[in-house]
Amino acid sequence: PVKRAGEVGRKKQRVVVVRAEGGGGINPEIRKNEEKVVDSVVVTELSKNITPYCRCWRSGTFPLCDGSHVKHNKANGDNVGPLLLKKQ
Amino acid sequence: PVKRAGEVGRKKQRVVVVRAEGGGGINPEIRKNEEKVVDSVVVTELSKNITPYCRCWRSGTFPLCDGSHVKHNKANGDNVGPLLLKKQ
Ligand code: FES
Ligand code: FES
Repeated sequence: PVKRAGEVGRKKQRVVVVRAEGGGGINPEIRKNEEKVVDSVVVTELSKNITPYCRCWRSGTFPLCDGSHVKHNKANGDNVGPLLLKKQ
Repeated sequence: PVKRAGEVGRKKQRVVVVRAEGGGGINPEIRKNEEKVVDSVVVTELSKNITPYCRCWRSGTFPLCDGSHVKHNKANGDNVGPLLLKKQ
């Protein structure tokens, strides 16, 4: 439609504000009833020569790694992996 | 006063929350040149009785924990913490 003089000042302007979401948490599920999830390993009690511990917060066997970091990395373009405890 | 084009009395502000694609990553900074960040600890070489290892991906001394999980948890309502390796 053709605007007449004077109409331009009343035109509605849409301003779109793009704001990043603040939810930068990395643990969506594990032991959310705990204020801080800390685990301990007494290293003399390790049974296998290599034991992988989870650092992706997606393992079904947390604090151990069950390989779930692979799916997480692929889905999110991430590059996280476990901490390997080695007896020697 | 005469309004010029683009100068409007009332702006309708629309707030759009967007999440970048793959925005579920948990490691924003550490060794992003590596396809997968895996670390190894030979437990017989641990020097201290307790050594905390980072699981929040915010430590300045990664793979060790430097306490940065506290700031991360507070800023994001999260509850992550380190893995403690204990000699006994
Ligand atoms: S499952 Fe979490 S690091 Fe492997
Ligand atoms: S600094 Fe990452 S768990 Fe403590």
